[in-house]
Amino acid sequence: MSIEKTIPDFSRGQPCQGTGGVLPAIAQDAQSGQVLMLAWMDRIAWEETMATGQAVYFSRSRGQLWRKGETSGHRQQVEEVRVDCDADTILLKVRQTGAACHEGFKSCFFRRVDQEGHTTIADSRLVNPATVYGNQANQ
Amino acid sequence: MSIEKTIPDFSRGQPCQGTGGVLPAIAQDAQSGQVLMLAWMDRIAWEETMATGQAVYFSRSRGQLWRKGETSGHRQQVEEVRVDCDADTILLKVRQTGAACHEGFKSCFFRRVDQEGHTTIADSRLVNPATVYGNQANQ
Repeated sequence: MSIEKTIPDFSRGQPCQGTGGVLPAIAQDAQSGQVLMLAWMDRIAWEETMATGQAVYFSRSRGQLWRKGETSGHRQQVEEVRVDCDADTILLKVRQTGAACHEGFKSCFFRRVDQEGHTTIADSRLVNPATVYGNQANQ
Repeated sequence: MSIEKTIPDFSRGQPCQGTGGVLPAIAQDAQSGQVLMLAWMDRIAWEETMATGQAVYFSRSRGQLWRKGETSGHRQQVEEVRVDCDADTILLKVRQTGAACHEGFKSCFFRRVDQEGHTTIADSRLVNPATVYGNQANQ
């Protein structure tokens, strides 16, 4: 087995529900460079992402694969994949349909924190979450 | 206590060496948008970062605060701080001196992974790690 095949190294991941470890995965807008979200991947999510070109994560709260956008339609088409020096963090450069955030913002990082620790909403909401998700779980 | 003061929520963090939880912190170049690295913060690292305007992380491997650039001089001046919707991931927009990566690359994400899982080095090395760190631990 080539060295290249050993990355990402899920054995360095956080133990999670019998997955064999989950690693943080950053989704970044491929065009604008905006950081959209951070989620988690186990090996299965990684393999499905690589095979389909659509971002698939592992939901730690639900304990199952999370095919991003399956409910909302707000999918992430993966344009480029990177791993970091320690092979324990994944970076996806994606084309985001609609809003990455379940609160209706393009990016989950819509809150700025000032030096005193106070937050302000620094971005504009793209969509109304109620119209996207209805009563379903956030996906 | 205002709601704003409760973020980030370290109680949602990964348990780590009696810290009360560590959360992932993404460092992004404030100007270019390049994602530089992912590290971890406990509450002490967060508070020192906010107080000093210099990125401070918690090294999970060394079990101690990691004042980024203390050895290498490759500091990160924090220009903006964001938290995500769940208040469990931190995004720092920074001005990076030199290379963020201990391997001498501007970004730790210097390896691209193709669909077959093979990696290539996609960036150029900025500095020779040996000249920066000598025999010291990577910082």
